[in-house]
Amino acid sequence: MNRHPRLLLTMGDVAGIGPEIIARAWPQLLSLCRPLVIGDPEWLRRALPLVRAPAEVVRVATPDFTAAGPAAIPCLPGSDQDLTQVIPAHVSAAAGRAAYDYLCAAIDLTRAGEAEGIVTAPLHKEGLRAAGLAYPGHTEILAERTGVRNFAMVLYVNGLAVAHVTLHTALRDVFASLSQQAILEKIRLIDQLMTRLLGRRPAVGVAALNPHASDGGIFGDEENTLISPAVDQARAAGINVTGPWPSDTLFVKAREGAFQAVVAMYHDQGHIALKLLGGWRAVNISAGLPIVRTSVAHGTAYDIAGKGLADPTSLVEAVKVAARLAAEKM
Amino acid sequence: MNRHPRLLLTMGDVAGIGPEIIARAWPQLLSLCRPLVIGDPEWLRRALPLVRAPAEVVRVATPDFTAAGPAAIPCLPGSDQDLTQVIPAHVSAAAGRAAYDYLCAAIDLTRAGEAEGIVTAPLHKEGLRAAGLAYPGHTEILAERTGVRNFAMVLYVNGLAVAHVTLHTALRDVFASLSQQAILEKIRLIDQLMTRLLGRRPAVGVAALNPHASDGGIFGDEENTLISPAVDQARAAGINVTGPWPSDTLFVKAREGAFQAVVAMYHDQGHIALKLLGGWRAVNISAGLPIVRTSVAHGTAYDIAGKGLADPTSLVEAVKVAARLAAEKM
Repeated sequence: MNRHPRLLLTMGDVAGIGPEIIARAWPQLLSLCRPLVIGDPEWLRRALPLVRAPAEVVRVATPDFTAAGPAAIPCLPGSDQDLTQVIPAHVSAAAGRAAYDYLCAAIDLTRAGEAEGIVTAPLHKEGLRAAGLAYPGHTEILAERTGVRNFAMVLYVNGLAVAHVTLHTALRDVFASLSQQAILEKIRLIDQLMTRLLGRRPAVGVAALNPHASDGGIFGDEENTLISPAVDQARAAGINVTGPWPSDTLFVKAREGAFQAVVAMYHDQGHIALKLLGGWRAVNISAGLPIVRTSVAHGTAYDIAGKGLADPTSLVEAVKVAARLAAEKM
Repeated sequence: MNRHPRLLLTMGDVAGIGPEIIARAWPQLLSLCRPLVIGDPEWLRRALPLVRAPAEVVRVATPDFTAAGPAAIPCLPGSDQDLTQVIPAHVSAAAGRAAYDYLCAAIDLTRAGEAEGIVTAPLHKEGLRAAGLAYPGHTEILAERTGVRNFAMVLYVNGLAVAHVTLHTALRDVFASLSQQAILEKIRLIDQLMTRLLGRRPAVGVAALNPHASDGGIFGDEENTLISPAVDQARAAGINVTGPWPSDTLFVKAREGAFQAVVAMYHDQGHIALKLLGGWRAVNISAGLPIVRTSVAHGTAYDIAGKGLADPTSLVEAVKVAARLAAEKM
């Protein structure tokens, strides 16, 4: 009997690289999990020759994982949208709505015990908008549909996880969004997530906001007023956490293995490091949800979509992480 | 006749790692330049056994470069401070004042045509402060003494140069210091510097301030109001410059060779990348001065000073860059 966890792969925006990365990654995925695609069978079929996949798409009407094999990719249609008019690499309301439907179907099936986790291919936020769906991305849909308020998008690369206290906001607006409570929440979420992933408590490093961690208060005071108190509180709660560290040295120390998790204060602080540390392998992990969900850390890549050029590394890594997290649900 | 440029090596704060990195790097420096140390002969002598240097220190009374050789390190005393009471790895007014004196002597000698450039070992800003000298570091002393107002500290690592529009300031105060004029000045300075260093115009990439370069104005507007206009102005002046680029992808592109120079908006934006790209090899170059000056990009490292553990790589790299820039002065 196959003891791998059952993972649902949502196809995302069909006009992007989702179908082709699933098709290209398929043989590798079979050794990591029992996979089932939720998406459009016809768009998946069209992706097969792009990546010279020897498999066939098998349309299934229920979440039937048994059909999966080297020669067969089971695909459960997760939306009633008509996608025949969608053009590769073009935003459309139909593809946007379908991507949303695939995700909702995957969430509901996972919560109903039909799968142990979800791995998502990229959606296009303009497609969502065109469909009248006002979500910035996957994570907010997942949080809403599972009724969760404290969650975090964690990026994971080569053994290092990074959570951001603020994310898609102007740098000027970061200061108003930082609070001791928000920093503490992210420390807690990344500690819980990495404890599950590693099987032991991670060493968490918290980044400073100001250069040189403010050099003792010379350049800014958020280290003293917000970050240090949050770190102290987390440490008192038993978390193996230190900081605030000057952000430039923190990521070098993390690369050397001193930290398995980092809490960054703003988007670019974490992302500059993550991209340099191996962005193409990065995985997005939802922390704080009642279900396992990971994702590729890239977008729909319309510039290369439909050309058979897309690299499936991030998807394979996302499946590896989801399989590890999902194993404990079995 | 030796055609290498004559470079003055200032010893910096004698209680730091300056003396020992000079002693350790010495044999390599001889193949790159004609070096002369400005500092304290006795402290340099004490550093020799720490690094098992086979050379002897030769005290010279004038800037005499002829004594330099594998067995002889010429040292010109550049200060009348009494340093006999200074303790390794401890801040003192005497060592702070002496470091300032060495630098001033080197500036004056170089401006008088006695040398083609200066390479500085680290000073300690608390030592400067203890001596009543209110400078944040070398660069401001150099600018003041040479009467320059537009200058930049450029960091250089593995062929990539980075200039920062704002530097040692709280992140919260960055916004008030950014201006189209300030961004344009840094683009100009780094273009001039790298043109000299490479012998051709560099490709300059300018970083955005906000995540995703504001995603078309969704997260902040400095890309539209300040950075794009500065880039346009620089391009109109013939500079090969593009941007604003999202900072996380910009440094990945730079590592791949798409850019030889980057203008960053704030300290950590540039430094996170620089440290990950090879911080221990980083060189600090003063752009915009009438004299050639480079420096190690690290500090006095009091934690390891006097123990013979310090890595001289940054000093060797700094000498390489200074020698290349100085060659055109000969």
